Amino acid sequence: MTRNLVDAEVSPVGQFAILSKYEINKLTGESRGPLYQVFRNCSLAVLSSGGYMDDGKELLEKYADFDISVIPTERNVKIRVKNAPAIAFVDGKMIRGISEHLFSVLRDIIYVNSEITGDPRYDLVSAQGTTDAVFHILRNAGTFNRSRAPRLVVCWGGHSISSAEYDYTKDVGYELALRYLDICTGCGPGAMKGPMKGATIGHAKQRDRHGQYLGITEPGIIAAEAPNPIVNQLVIMPDIEKRLEAFVRTGHGIVVFPGGAGTAEEILYLMGILLHEDNLEQPFPVIFTGPASAADYFIRIDQFIVSTLGEKARSRYQIIIDDPPEVARQMAAGIQEVQEYRKESGDAFYFNWKLKVSTEFQRPFIPTHQNMHDLELHTNQEPYRLAANLRRAFSGIVSGNVKNEGIRNVEKNGPYQLRGDPSLMRSMDTLLASFAKQQRMKLPGKEYIPCYEISAE
Amino acid sequence: MTRNLVDAEVSPVGQFAILSKYEINKLTGESRGPLYQVFRNCSLAVLSSGGYMDDGKELLEKYADFDISVIPTERNVKIRVKNAPAIAFVDGKMIRGISEHLFSVLRDIIYVNSEITGDPRYDLVSAQGTTDAVFHILRNAGTFNRSRAPRLVVCWGGHSISSAEYDYTKDVGYELALRYLDICTGCGPGAMKGPMKGATIGHAKQRDRHGQYLGITEPGIIAAEAPNPIVNQLVIMPDIEKRLEAFVRTGHGIVVFPGGAGTAEEILYLMGILLHEDNLEQPFPVIFTGPASAADYFIRIDQFIVSTLGEKARSRYQIIIDDPPEVARQMAAGIQEVQEYRKESGDAFYFNWKLKVSTEFQRPFIPTHQNMHDLELHTNQEPYRLAANLRRAFSGIVSGNVKNEGIRNVEKNGPYQLRGDPSLMRSMDTLLASFAKQQRMKLPGKEYIPCYEISAE
Amino acid sequence: MTRNLVDAEVSPVGQFAILSKYEINKLTGESRGPLYQVFRNCSLAVLSSGGYMDDGKELLEKYADFDISVIPTERNVKIRVKNAPAIAFVDGKMIRGISEHLFSVLRDIIYVNSEITGDPRYDLVSAQGTTDAVFHILRNAGTFNRSRAPRLVVCWGGHSISSAEYDYTKDVGYELALRYLDICTGCGPGAMKGPMKGATIGHAKQRDRHGQYLGITEPGIIAAEAPNPIVNQLVIMPDIEKRLEAFVRTGHGIVVFPGGAGTAEEILYLMGILLHEDNLEQPFPVIFTGPASAADYFIRIDQFIVSTLGEKARSRYQIIIDDPPEVARQMAAGIQEVQEYRKESGDAFYFNWKLKVSTEFQRPFIPTHQNMHDLELHTNQEPYRLAANLRRAFSGIVSGNVKNEGIRNVEKNGPYQLRGDPSLMRSMDTLLASFAKQQRMKLPGKEYIPCYEISAE
Amino acid sequence: MTRNLVDAEVSPVGQFAILSKYEINKLTGESRGPLYQVFRNCSLAVLSSGGYMDDGKELLEKYADFDISVIPTERNVKIRVKNAPAIAFVDGKMIRGISEHLFSVLRDIIYVNSEITGDPRYDLVSAQGTTDAVFHILRNAGTFNRSRAPRLVVCWGGHSISSAEYDYTKDVGYELALRYLDICTGCGPGAMKGPMKGATIGHAKQRDRHGQYLGITEPGIIAAEAPNPIVNQLVIMPDIEKRLEAFVRTGHGIVVFPGGAGTAEEILYLMGILLHEDNLEQPFPVIFTGPASAADYFIRIDQFIVSTLGEKARSRYQIIIDDPPEVARQMAAGIQEVQEYRKESGDAFYFNWKLKVSTEFQRPFIPTHQNMHDLELHTNQEPYRLAANLRRAFSGIVSGNVKNEGIRNVEKNGPYQLRGDPSLMRSMDTLLASFAKQQRMKLPGKEYIPCYEISAE
Repeated sequence: MTRNLVDAEVSPVGQFAILSKYEINKLTGESRGPLYQVFRNCSLAVLSSGGYMDDGKELLEKYADFDISVIPTERNVKIRVKNAPAIAFVDGKMIRGISEHLFSVLRDIIYVNSEITGDPRYDLVSAQGTTDAVFHILRNAGTFNRSRAPRLVVCWGGHSISSAEYDYTKDVGYELALRYLDICTGCGPGAMKGPMKGATIGHAKQRDRHGQYLGITEPGIIAAEAPNPIVNQLVIMPDIEKRLEAFVRTGHGIVVFPGGAGTAEEILYLMGILLHEDNLEQPFPVIFTGPASAADYFIRIDQFIVSTLGEKARSRYQIIIDDPPEVARQMAAGIQEVQEYRKESGDAFYFNWKLKVSTEFQRPFIPTHQNMHDLELHTNQEPYRLAANLRRAFSGIVSGNVKNEGIRNVEKNGPYQLRGDPSLMRSMDTLLASFAKQQRMKLPGKEYIPCYEISAE
Repeated sequence: MTRNLVDAEVSPVGQFAILSKYEINKLTGESRGPLYQVFRNCSLAVLSSGGYMDDGKELLEKYADFDISVIPTERNVKIRVKNAPAIAFVDGKMIRGISEHLFSVLRDIIYVNSEITGDPRYDLVSAQGTTDAVFHILRNAGTFNRSRAPRLVVCWGGHSISSAEYDYTKDVGYELALRYLDICTGCGPGAMKGPMKGATIGHAKQRDRHGQYLGITEPGIIAAEAPNPIVNQLVIMPDIEKRLEAFVRTGHGIVVFPGGAGTAEEILYLMGILLHEDNLEQPFPVIFTGPASAADYFIRIDQFIVSTLGEKARSRYQIIIDDPPEVARQMAAGIQEVQEYRKESGDAFYFNWKLKVSTEFQRPFIPTHQNMHDLELHTNQEPYRLAANLRRAFSGIVSGNVKNEGIRNVEKNGPYQLRGDPSLMRSMDTLLASFAKQQRMKLPGKEYIPCYEISAE
Repeated sequence: MTRNLVDAEVSPVGQFAILSKYEINKLTGESRGPLYQVFRNCSLAVLSSGGYMDDGKELLEKYADFDISVIPTERNVKIRVKNAPAIAFVDGKMIRGISEHLFSVLRDIIYVNSEITGDPRYDLVSAQGTTDAVFHILRNAGTFNRSRAPRLVVCWGGHSISSAEYDYTKDVGYELALRYLDICTGCGPGAMKGPMKGATIGHAKQRDRHGQYLGITEPGIIAAEAPNPIVNQLVIMPDIEKRLEAFVRTGHGIVVFPGGAGTAEEILYLMGILLHEDNLEQPFPVIFTGPASAADYFIRIDQFIVSTLGEKARSRYQIIIDDPPEVARQMAAGIQEVQEYRKESGDAFYFNWKLKVSTEFQRPFIPTHQNMHDLELHTNQEPYRLAANLRRAFSGIVSGNVKNEGIRNVEKNGPYQLRGDPSLMRSMDTLLASFAKQQRMKLPGKEYIPCYEISAE
Repeated sequence: MTRNLVDAEVSPVGQFAILSKYEINKLTGESRGPLYQVFRNCSLAVLSSGGYMDDGKELLEKYADFDISVIPTERNVKIRVKNAPAIAFVDGKMIRGISEHLFSVLRDIIYVNSEITGDPRYDLVSAQGTTDAVFHILRNAGTFNRSRAPRLVVCWGGHSISSAEYDYTKDVGYELALRYLDICTGCGPGAMKGPMKGATIGHAKQRDRHGQYLGITEPGIIAAEAPNPIVNQLVIMPDIEKRLEAFVRTGHGIVVFPGGAGTAEEILYLMGILLHEDNLEQPFPVIFTGPASAADYFIRIDQFIVSTLGEKARSRYQIIIDDPPEVARQMAAGIQEVQEYRKESGDAFYFNWKLKVSTEFQRPFIPTHQNMHDLELHTNQEPYRLAANLRRAFSGIVSGNVKNEGIRNVEKNGPYQLRGDPSLMRSMDTLLASFAKQQRMKLPGKEYIPCYEISAE
């Protein structure tokens, strides 16, 4: 049996910046060190977009003979791929959106390596240094536009959702775009793709040719959540924590669709930040929404939040079931408040400098078995700290489910062991069991084998 | 019970040309003569886009108190509407695509009235005068772009099609757009909307920001086939014959999806022209296509064509079932041939001057009961003449089905009487019965009452 | 001795509209009738731009073997020239601005011939029909821009001026452009070129990339006043009267530099219109200006106006000597008033519909010897009518000085005979003598032989 | 006596990048350290453009109460100036080109301080580190455009030249622009302004809206050579050596007009590099040109070069007297060779990576009295090293003539003492005396007092 593989060369189109001779050399030398590996793997993910796979390890193994190289030319550089997935091509020519993504990968990997890592200016232990790094990566990627008023809606939700839920995310995206709002997602399939598809039609009807479809990902997740080609600005952040910070600092409001462990991670991250006392006065519209069939899902999420983080958390989100125009109207109204707040406080439209993100949410969490085991999962701590620890637990589960690194770890060492307060553990167990039952942990068609075990202390 | 009605004012956006004081006066005087009525009715149709109605008469009656006026301003003009359908608005603001369409209606009605009608240059009895009028209306509408290579695919098919067929038209539009092809349709719902929606996604993935979605309609049909707002160039031709000529002279290839009497009319028009001996050498890709479920439909169409126009007709089309990428590939290849032919023969890319359209296909046919009765429907004539007469018969049936004028006529005088050769009449009866049975004559949910009776001479 | 002649082919660039097959045929047939002659002669004038000749007849004779033809192509048309003046080329390639002008000539000649002449809509005897024709020619030429606020300053003045005066016109153009004002002239050398050169630098400093340099000419004068290539919108009106009407209806204010008989013609035209009672309330800034050395010139003009049209005329212009920034400030202030007036009265920014131009100023005047002889040059008539007749007298003198037709007439029949009131004739004689003495009638280096004789009745 | 001073606020226009909160803070703190002083002084220079002063010290003293500050806003930042020179404004509004320059100053000062200084990546002692820094500053300033073919002509020459020479530089700029070439200069008056003015007209005639007028300066010289507002890309390099390297790496050819000590410095720099054996095969068109009146000037330059650097140097330049079209033709032909060479060798169009610039030419030279005294000015060294030392000597003289720092040093410590081989010293003395006599050392109207003394060792 032959797989469909294509060799091709592509030149940069659009905004791709010019590289220096030394920047190019980093990815072309004989050595092909770890930087090259990151570049190769992210590129492969981009090229497999639309291939409906959600298992990073599987992808890398399937295309083991894939090769990519960067070649300098008189106008800049070109990229040469060998044995690339045929799905990225139409009649042998690479889809333009995908070739743009390849150059986005190249841009961000070179930038982070050249300008961030090793420059003493970015003290990545301090909150300011981290935030500054996030800002510079986004700026270098061209995502800021100072002539644009606030209009970027972050859409979170699962990559594995039902067809009714998927259609619903399209409808919400459509209604948002009719109100001249833009879309930012984690840029995989499912709830990350639907809103962009809907918004494409909505923007077309409004003749809004400059709709922004911002995808923010990171090297660990990109293979499992390959960016869809509608994404017209792709940014590769160095790790999941900076990716989450990028979402909350560039987005002007957040819509959460049904999802699984990853979505829970995002919700906990968001609640942890919005409940910090420095942020209480800042307007930040958050809407949980889905079709009628997903009503039960949000009841469970709501219960989990209230039981773990307290009743007060409810003031930071609203739940709207089965009403896309209302979601869009509420979001537009909320963003109007954000705009006024930014003007009054002199904060930038394109980057939320004022939002306090404490170091608990910035420091990278590596989900080793030991780190997972050591998480402090008890209610005897401030809500925002508990949110931070719960966030880490869900982050680890996402890794064990879909990331190359995590899957290998669990294959080798067995399920992660999570321990904590009995009531907390029960809440968590219930929630995760409901996700698994609703097939939200993996794409349907594969049986889900949990990558964790929960036990009370 | 209150209907949702909105009052609003809109200013022109985009390419709308500047009007002279005298042009504006034609639509603003106290008189509000017949020109104003055409303008009002077409505008109402544009505003009801998305309302899923296919009965021109019903629409006009439902919004009897709708009013529209043109007001001069220092920058040009604005349009004021009263009691307009709410569906054209998002939170009280008119959808931009719809306001563009309003100004397209205004532009074409003024242009045809000012520049075509009454100018002795356009001798509308001669073939050249008619073709020249078609050219000038299209040029004035800005549809020609001399920097564009041939890439416009006309998509024909029913406004009332099954959900599987609709999804199929989207897939074909998507695949065409991935190959940088554009879409032209009659701009109503169903097979006229699907390809544009699909193409919007395809063009977005290819970063093709200048995709052309050309809608060509005419005052008699627009109320039944309201333009969808994705259409980014809308042209109102004066009558159905010039509309059909516009399709075949601007399009570089034609895809036919399943449809009803209107689609049959279009197919007969096309075959009549392509079978003319002056056109035999000219490349012109024509593809009949649909999902597996529509295979039977095309068998019937194929049989009808061969039985009436002869075996030779088959050389001018191919039938592809259930394979959107193949449709797109064949169309792209066919258009490549068209491009080469035009270059060799020095003909324009944007307008097929060389195509012979004889006066049988240009002269407006008014489907009165007498004219329908008098049609010469026998095989004892050249195939292209028979095609012309069959085209007229189907045109009358479309009118009786969905056009305001036609419905009123049939209500008053009973069904049209069609007479002709027994075998021909049988073929026609069979085809029409199959359309009615497959619910292709009207939108589902309404029982179809035939507006015609067929009898052998 | 060989002259420098070049053969070349050029394709349209920029905005050139698409022509129909029949429009192209008008200029390509074997016949090459009078329309072709007009096209050829205007084209030759465009190609000789920068050649510093002001004698239409001389130009046509010098390039007797010049040939031009229009050739249809698959993207539109191209123009082929043979034995064209080398000055239009740089290293064998035609200067882009000049090739744009060639296509402007083609556009306007075809438009006037196809759409204006012979269309019963343009009743060229009536004021409305004439104004409508002027509007349509300008609109078709793309000179209107509805997003632009009033900013077009018409600059009049001689083609034959001193170097100090020329530098002064550059300084005024520079100061106007620094205030974001645009320039419109008759598009020849001298005072028609200087303001555009200065404005080019001013707009560059203000980063105003869309500065409008509008040149309005007509077939009779273009050979004597070849458009300079800075003109980025060139319009060929059918005759001098429509050219003058185009100036006053599109311009938002007028600056008059020193000049000769043509400038006097323009001043009289302007005064005749502004003194009409229907126009008295309309703001319309008019500034006569020049360097210190030209102060005497404007004293004479001022005296002539007051002695012929009365003291009241002074309220319609101001004289500013040797102060370019002040000219620009006054013009900007005056145009601000124009903008407010148009807004209040609902008149268009880009075309002054409200200005009354009576038929005396619209009806083409053919300066035959008989017509010149019959002019009613006496003070026993309303000032605006006297202005109209004086205008005709100066128009005839311009023709006898520089136009091909006029020069031939005078060669054949001797000088024009002008008769009228003694005092009026004295004023006129004095003024014309001062022009001749100051070398304002022809380019320096040629002796001026008057083409007229003045005598009291 | 009151000077004209203006207070104003300006917002960024065009391409100005978005600043981070921390970048802004560098220029806004209470401290206002040395970085602020550089920013203030460069800004003042930009604002005094057109003021015809060439003495940095004089400028700073005249506007001692000038103040500038950077204020964050929701869309980015704005700049507030107090007591700014009125010449930068038109009727109270800052000229757009000048406000762009202010933001260019801000951009480069922040970039160099944030990204270059202190980042271990830029090892400014090594040739590669320096070149990389030059590349990054230019890239960040947006001067590279990968879609542009080679077309940038560097024009060098004096800021103090005769009116005939000035007009000649305009004519050359005009002819270059007619051939679609762009202009790069040191961006002061005289030979740095003329070519840009001429090119503006030339580009306008060719409808070349994207002509590049690149000005490259540095904080030490900008006050004496304030950028003219036609410059549409302004870059502030950190020092004179990086400025010179920027010229030779971005320019595709060099035209040298008559000038003084600064021009001699540039010529020696250029010869020193082009005579390096690694560069001998690289095409690099260099043309010395001026009007007939400057013929003598170039004879002296030619003699000086040959007598100091040897006959071989002549192969790297040609001298063309009084023929602007020929200069432009030769330059266009030379740049064509450059383009082919770059394609063959795979070097970038926008940056000459292959050119060897040895560290002698990169290391900043501080013209203290000691350093000037210690220069090794004898013929007993390789020509390229001698060129480097002569370059330093002339650089010191420029500083003593027009730079704030240098003038103060000479005021305090008397003239620089230069010593070397007798013959060399005689050549130098002769050349400098001829400059002084021709009034090329300072703007006319001031007597020139030499800032140096030459003696043989």
